[in-house]
Amino acid sequence: MQGTERWAELGQQLRVDSVRAAAAAGSGHPTSSMSAADLMAVLLDGHLRYDFDDPANPCNDHLIFSKGHASPLLYSLYRAAGAIDDRELLSFRKLGSRLEGHPSPRLPWVDVATGSLGQGLPVGVGVALAGRYLDHLPYRVWVLCGDSELAEGSMWEAFEHASFTQLDHLTAILDVNRLGQTRETRHGWDTGAYAERLRAFGWHAIEIDGHDVDAIDKAYQEAVGTDGRPTAIVARTVKGKGVQAVENRNGMHGKPLDDPEAAIRELGGLRNLTVKVRKPPSQVPHRFPAAGELELPRFEVGDKVATRRAYGQALAALGTAEGNVVALDGEVSNSTYSELFAKAHPDRFFEMYIAEQQMIAAAVGMQVRGWRPFASTFAAFLTRAYDFIRMAAVSRADLRLAGSHAGVSIGEDGPSQMGLEDLAALRAVHGSVVLHPCDANQTAELVAAMAEQAGISYLRTLRGATPVIYPPGTPMPIGGSQVLRSSGDDQVTIVGVGVTVHEALKAADHLAERGVRARVIDAYSVKPIDRTTLLAAAEATSRIVTVEDHWPEGGLGDAVLDAFADARPAPRVVKLAVSGMPGSGKPDELLREAGIDAEAIADAALALAATP
Amino acid sequence: MQGTERWAELGQQLRVDSVRAAAAAGSGHPTSSMSAADLMAVLLDGHLRYDFDDPANPCNDHLIFSKGHASPLLYSLYRAAGAIDDRELLSFRKLGSRLEGHPSPRLPWVDVATGSLGQGLPVGVGVALAGRYLDHLPYRVWVLCGDSELAEGSMWEAFEHASFTQLDHLTAILDVNRLGQTRETRHGWDTGAYAERLRAFGWHAIEIDGHDVDAIDKAYQEAVGTDGRPTAIVARTVKGKGVQAVENRNGMHGKPLDDPEAAIRELGGLRNLTVKVRKPPSQVPHRFPAAGELELPRFEVGDKVATRRAYGQALAALGTAEGNVVALDGEVSNSTYSELFAKAHPDRFFEMYIAEQQMIAAAVGMQVRGWRPFASTFAAFLTRAYDFIRMAAVSRADLRLAGSHAGVSIGEDGPSQMGLEDLAALRAVHGSVVLHPCDANQTAELVAAMAEQAGISYLRTLRGATPVIYPPGTPMPIGGSQVLRSSGDDQVTIVGVGVTVHEALKAADHLAERGVRARVIDAYSVKPIDRTTLLAAAEATSRIVTVEDHWPEGGLGDAVLDAFADARPAPRVVKLAVSGMPGSGKPDELLREAGIDAEAIADAALALAATP
Repeated sequence: MQGTERWAELGQQLRVDSVRAAAAAGSGHPTSSMSAADLMAVLLDGHLRYDFDDPANPCNDHLIFSKGHASPLLYSLYRAAGAIDDRELLSFRKLGSRLEGHPSPRLPWVDVATGSLGQGLPVGVGVALAGRYLDHLPYRVWVLCGDSELAEGSMWEAFEHASFTQLDHLTAILDVNRLGQTRETRHGWDTGAYAERLRAFGWHAIEIDGHDVDAIDKAYQEAVGTDGRPTAIVARTVKGKGVQAVENRNGMHGKPLDDPEAAIRELGGLRNLTVKVRKPPSQVPHRFPAAGELELPRFEVGDKVATRRAYGQALAALGTAEGNVVALDGEVSNSTYSELFAKAHPDRFFEMYIAEQQMIAAAVGMQVRGWRPFASTFAAFLTRAYDFIRMAAVSRADLRLAGSHAGVSIGEDGPSQMGLEDLAALRAVHGSVVLHPCDANQTAELVAAMAEQAGISYLRTLRGATPVIYPPGTPMPIGGSQVLRSSGDDQVTIVGVGVTVHEALKAADHLAERGVRARVIDAYSVKPIDRTTLLAAAEATSRIVTVEDHWPEGGLGDAVLDAFADARPAPRVVKLAVSGMPGSGKPDELLREAGIDAEAIADAALALAATP
Repeated sequence: MQGTERWAELGQQLRVDSVRAAAAAGSGHPTSSMSAADLMAVLLDGHLRYDFDDPANPCNDHLIFSKGHASPLLYSLYRAAGAIDDRELLSFRKLGSRLEGHPSPRLPWVDVATGSLGQGLPVGVGVALAGRYLDHLPYRVWVLCGDSELAEGSMWEAFEHASFTQLDHLTAILDVNRLGQTRETRHGWDTGAYAERLRAFGWHAIEIDGHDVDAIDKAYQEAVGTDGRPTAIVARTVKGKGVQAVENRNGMHGKPLDDPEAAIRELGGLRNLTVKVRKPPSQVPHRFPAAGELELPRFEVGDKVATRRAYGQALAALGTAEGNVVALDGEVSNSTYSELFAKAHPDRFFEMYIAEQQMIAAAVGMQVRGWRPFASTFAAFLTRAYDFIRMAAVSRADLRLAGSHAGVSIGEDGPSQMGLEDLAALRAVHGSVVLHPCDANQTAELVAAMAEQAGISYLRTLRGATPVIYPPGTPMPIGGSQVLRSSGDDQVTIVGVGVTVHEALKAADHLAERGVRARVIDAYSVKPIDRTTLLAAAEATSRIVTVEDHWPEGGLGDAVLDAFADARPAPRVVKLAVSGMPGSGKPDELLREAGIDAEAIADAALALAATP
C-alpha cells in the first residue's frame, strides 16, 4: 500500500486510536484529533524526518502540537511510529502515565508542554530560530495549530517574528475545523480570512482541503520548497471527521465518544499500520567559540553601579566563557543592559521587539536545543508572559529571566513601569529560583550561578545605582544570604533585599545611634530562602523586620514568614512593603512615601524592639 | 486663525509644551510626543467631542493614549483645552502631581492607566463595545497607538475583535515614527506593511503623512464616515519632529532634550492657543431592565454541586436583579458556566474567544462606562492576562474575575489546565480581593458580595462537584471565614479553602477517631483573610495546618502566616500544598499524590499535635 491509499488508511488508524485512547481514559479530545488525522498521517509517513530511537539527535525535525488538546492524535502517531505500544496508548490520562491529558516532555519526543493555546507556535519559532541562527542545522519545525487559538495575540507575535526572521523551515499547519469549545470560531470555514491575514504578515499560505491526502502531500512539498519565508497550510477540516455522530457538530468538544465501538466500526476498525519514519540527515551542530574560563566583571567596593548594568556586564562575560549562552530582549536592551551582551556577541543576541510572550516562547524553544537563554525586560513586563513562564515550568524548561526596574525605586516613570508583583509571581512558578541582588558584584556572581541552575531562575535588578558593598568574588550561592551586621547581642534583625538592603544598613546606623543593635541580613535568594540564617537570627533577636520594594503579598516577607512557620521560639515579624499605589516622584521620595526607607525601617525596628 | 495654520500652530504648541514638561521633570518622552503632536492637534481642535468640565458626561468621546509614554503630549492637550494650567503642566512627574510619568485616572479625563504597551487599544475596544452594545450612545473612541507596540499580540487581539464586532466608532491612530527605544521597528516607515495587515484584519486603513494637518483632518472625516468597520489612520511621522537635534535620530527615546530652550526657540517659542473643544451631543444611555431584588440560587445541603456551576447561576441571578452587570468569557463559557448568564441575558454577554488579554481589557473598558463586568476563564488562563490585571489596578478599575478549574482537583486534563499559581498572582494585585468558595451557596453569596466590591475581586471555582455544606443565605462577608468544627478544647486547627475544606472535614473525622480534636476553618476569603478568627484559633490550639490546592508560595498558607506574623503566642504552622509537578489522574488520586487529601492532613495534624 502506497501513497494516497496508505495515507488514507493511516489517517483512519489515527482516528480509531484517538477514539480508543479517549474511550479508555473516559475523557479527552477525540473530535479535535480526528480533524487533523489526515494532515498528520501524511506528515508522519511522507515528510517528517525524525529518529524515534534517538530523540536527542540534533538533526531531528520538531513536531509541536500547539493544539495540545489533540494529544490522542499525537500519541496515536507515536504508536504508528512504533515509539509506544498499544497498552501504553490506552494508559492515556491515567495516574502515572507519560501520556498526560496534554503533551508534556515526560515523553522524550515532546519538546515542550502545550495545552495553553497559542503557545506551541511561538515556541516553534524559538526552535526554528535556534535551527537557523544557532545550530545552523537543516531541521524543519512543524507546528499543528488549531483555528480557535488564532484568536490569541501570541500567535500573531509568532507569525510576525517568523516572517521577519525568514524562518522558511517553519511550517504552521492550521487545522481549521470551524468549531471551538462552545461555538463556531470567528471565521468558521473561511480559510481565506486566515490566508489573507497570514500573507499580509509575510507568510506563504496554502489553502487546502485537509482531508485530501494528495493535496496535503503537495502542500508539504510546497512548504519545503519555499524559500525566504515560512509557510502556513490552511486546511479546511471537519471536526470529528469520519464518525457521523460527532462529525461537524457543535457540543462535541473535549469528550469521549458516546459509542466508541460503533465509531471504530464506522472508521473501518482497528488497524496496525507501522510507519518507518524517515531518519534525519546527519550533521554536526554549529558551536560558537568559547573561552571556557569565566571572568566576571569586578566592581570596586564603594562605587555606585546599577545592578541592571552589572547584569549586562556579567552576561557578556558569561557569553565569552560559554558558547551556548544566548540572550533575548524585548526592545529594552539599553534599559536591561542586555545590550552589553548584544555588543559582545551579536550572533547570539535576539531582538524580540515588544513581544514578551514571543520572547519567553523563543527562549523556551532555544533551550529545547540545549542553548542557555537569558531573557530580559522590565520586571513589570514579564507579567505579560506569565502564562508562558508557567507553561515553561510544565515543559521542564531551563530558563533564565532577568527583570529590571524593580519597584518604586525606579522613580518618575510611575506604577505602570514598576515591577511590584514579580517576586510573588515568580515564586509561584514550580521549581523556580528567585534572586534579587543589591550590588554589582553580587549580581555578577548570581548571573554565573543562574547559568548552572536547572529549571526557571529569575534575577530582579534595579534601575538606580547602588553602592557596591561586596568585594568581587564573594560567594553568593543560590539559597544563601549575607549577614551584613551582626553582634553577639542584637536586639532586632532587619531582612532586606535589593534596594532595601541599603536602606536597612542606614537604618541600622540610625538604630545604633539610638542604642539599638540591629542585625542586617541581605536575603538575596528569595527562593530558596536561607532558612538556616533566618532561624539563627530569630533565635538571637526574636524580632524581625522584613522590608521589600514590592507589594506585601507573596514576596520577601512571605518567604521569610514561611521559613519561620513552625520555628520555635517563633520570632515576631513585621513586614514592610509597598501598600499604597505609588505615583511618580524621585526614588528616595517614593521609598519614603511607601514606608520602606531607612527611617521607616528604623521606626518599625524601634517599635518592635520595645515589645515584650 | 483657522484650519491649516491654526492646527500647525497648535501642533507646535503641543511640541513646545511636551519639551517644557519633560525639561521641568528632568525625564519623560518628549520625542515620542512630538511625532504625534499634529495628529492630536487636529483631533482636539476638529473632531473630539468632549466636555472637559464634565468628564462623567456619558456622551463624551474617549481618547486613550495606548502609547502612554507620550504623556507630555496628553498633558499638553489638557493645557490647550484649558483643563490644566501651565503650573500643573510643569508639575509633570513630580511627587504628588496628578501628571504621572504615564497617564493614570488620577486625572478625571483619563479613562485608564497606560504605559504597558499594547493595552490602550484593547481597552478602547472595550469602551467601544460598551458604546455600541450597552450604552447605545454615539460616542467615538480614539486611540493613539505607537508603532513599536504593534509587536504586542494583544494589539492583534484587539484589531480582530474590533472588526468582528464592527466597531466603526473606534479609530486607531498609528503614530508610525519608525524608531523604538533602541532601534528601528521591524517595519520602519513601511506604513503599507501595517495597512496591509490591518485591511486583512477587516479594518479600513488610511495611510497619511502624519504632519500634514489637512490630510489628518481628511482622514478623521473619513474615519467618522466609515460604516461597519473600524478605521486605522496609519500616519508616517517623525520622532522628535521639529527639533533638529533629536529629529528622526536613534538614541533619543525617553529622555528630555539636552537644550530645551534652543528647542523651544526652534519650534517658534511658547504659545498659548486655547481650544474650545466641541461638546458631545446630549443623549441618555440605554439601561437594561432589572428586577432590583436579588434572588440568589439556593442549593440544598448535602447535594453535590460544582462551585463553577453555582457561579454561573448566581451570576445569571445577579444579572436579573441588576441591569448593569455584564459578563465576558474566553470561549469556555460551558466550563466556567458563564453560559448560564449568557442564556439569561444574551445582550449583556460578550464572547471574547480565546483572547484572554482582550477579554480583561474589554472588561476594563466597560467599567470605564460604569458597567459591572464579570470576566471568566480557567484560573490557569487568567495568567495570560496578568499584565492587564496588574494595569487594571493602576487604572483603579472595578473588575470581577472568575477562574475555574482550580488546582490538581480538576483531574485528567493535567497541569497545563490547572490553576496553581492564581491565588499568589491575584493576591499580589494592588487592592485585590481573593475568594475561593468550597460550596455552592457560599459561591452564590460571594458573587453577590463581589458585585458590591470596588477594585479587583477574584473568585476561584472548582471543576468537580463538592457537597453543599452551608444553608442558603448563610452570610459570607468578604474578609470573613467559617468555623466548621470547634470545641472548647481543640488540639489543632486545620485551615482549608475550596476543595481542601472537604478534605479537612474528613481529616477532622479521622482525627476524632484517633482521639484528636481538630478545629476546621474555611478561609474562603484568602484576601483579606479573617485574622480575628485565625488568631482565636491560634490562641486556642497553638497548632495550625493549612492546606490548599495551589503551589506552596503566595497562596492560603502564606496568607495565614501573614496573619500570625507578630501574633503572641505564635502558633506552629504546617503548610500543605502542591509541591511536585502533577500529571494526569483522577481528582482523588491527584489530591492524594499532592499530599493535600484528608489522610495527608490528618497525618500532618497528628504529627503537629504530638509536638511540644
